[in-house]
Amino acid sequence: MSSSQIKALAFDVFGTVVDWRSSISRQAAELGAKHGVDADWDKFADDWRAGYGAGMAKVNSGEDEWKIVDQIHRERLEVILEQYGFPNIDGAELTEFNKAWHRLDGWPDSTAGLTRLKSKYIITSLSNGNIALLTNMAKYANLPWDAVLSAEFAGKYKTHPRAYQRTAELLGLDYDEVMLVAAHTCDLRGAINAGLKATLVTRPDEYGNSKQPDLEPESDFDYFAKDFHELADQLGCD
Amino acid sequence: MSSSQIKALAFDVFGTVVDWRSSISRQAAELGAKHGVDADWDKFADDWRAGYGAGMAKVNSGEDEWKIVDQIHRERLEVILEQYGFPNIDGAELTEFNKAWHRLDGWPDSTAGLTRLKSKYIITSLSNGNIALLTNMAKYANLPWDAVLSAEFAGKYKTHPRAYQRTAELLGLDYDEVMLVAAHTCDLRGAINAGLKATLVTRPDEYGNSKQPDLEPESDFDYFAKDFHELADQLGCD
Repeated sequence: MSSSQIKALAFDVFGTVVDWRSSISRQAAELGAKHGVDADWDKFADDWRAGYGAGMAKVNSGEDEWKIVDQIHRERLEVILEQYGFPNIDGAELTEFNKAWHRLDGWPDSTAGLTRLKSKYIITSLSNGNIALLTNMAKYANLPWDAVLSAEFAGKYKTHPRAYQRTAELLGLDYDEVMLVAAHTCDLRGAINAGLKATLVTRPDEYGNSKQPDLEPESDFDYFAKDFHELADQLGCD
Repeated sequence: MSSSQIKALAFDVFGTVVDWRSSISRQAAELGAKHGVDADWDKFADDWRAGYGAGMAKVNSGEDEWKIVDQIHRERLEVILEQYGFPNIDGAELTEFNKAWHRLDGWPDSTAGLTRLKSKYIITSLSNGNIALLTNMAKYANLPWDAVLSAEFAGKYKTHPRAYQRTAELLGLDYDEVMLVAAHTCDLRGAINAGLKATLVTRPDEYGNSKQPDLEPESDFDYFAKDFHELADQLGCD
């Protein structure tokens, strides 16, 4: 396909732009040290993350009312802190620690790569994360978004088509003028199903050794790159 | 008041951050030259702008369904082009010219002043303009927003309290942790009524000689400054 039709690049964030697992593991280790708890903190990060898909599925099925990701994280956090043997932590400290997800480090190429892509395209988040989380994260990790958009504005989580389509509509663009950039095949299939374009950027270290990352593009993906610089090269950005 | 409680600065955009009147006047003169129409283009800008308040009032009263500002601008544009004696302009050119509102120049201090304020606070738009308009304008005028928020997410236009409150809620903040920065007293009264803090930044040249700008703060405004640099100084930004 020609890249001239594309007006905006919409990025999945967790895993694609930021390294959630190392960032959560590090912050959890700090909380553990403070409260005298020792554990496998990478596994703690995986266990916390495991509540995310289940929480969103309940919203999309209608079993739960709309619930932002901060709240989904908080409910799961209360369960796993007990499982990991933490003592009672007061509400204010819990609220603060729950914002560990607002403080995730970008991959080494994220800020510079996004800046290059921004020179030619509108760049926006298209994350299931809520706006407060994404805004704070952008400040923390220096992510130069033109717009901070989220499934929060659709009232449906990815991979529901409305999450993708609402993002294009808010930007005043046709669906096929927006290309999702993501490290996850299921997300890219959701975007294609909703009428968007799709690019796989691989993030081989996202899950450590706990889960296989998606490393091969499917035949109908529009671009395929190893990082944001490679994508910027392919798209003819300076 | 202490500035330490404030977490985010939310900016009115038209008039406060960008000089809509000169920018529209200039683009209208270009359209006129192309189509052989001569007119007072500052007055054309005022006449186009005059449809804005009326269009929003119909939405807030419930007389009209939700309608984005691009659409309000477009409906008014079709009326005034005829009044000014333009020949028929085709749909694609009209759509493009309607985006004149996406191409508004910042005031001379806007980019540098916002960048200073961003070093200490979350900075967001809190405009009646729709997200596509605000996103394109930020790129055009180099406005370094942390988030692009709008009355569009409330389904009510300022000065309805929900427009202000929804912005704070999306940022995960209490209402009084957000301060509206605006050049218009009526907007600041709306913010205070909704529970936000309020700062008047004066823009004496907004209306040329066609209308009196608001130049004096009211007694319950929290800050008062002549431009964004003066506000940054008052708030202790580098």
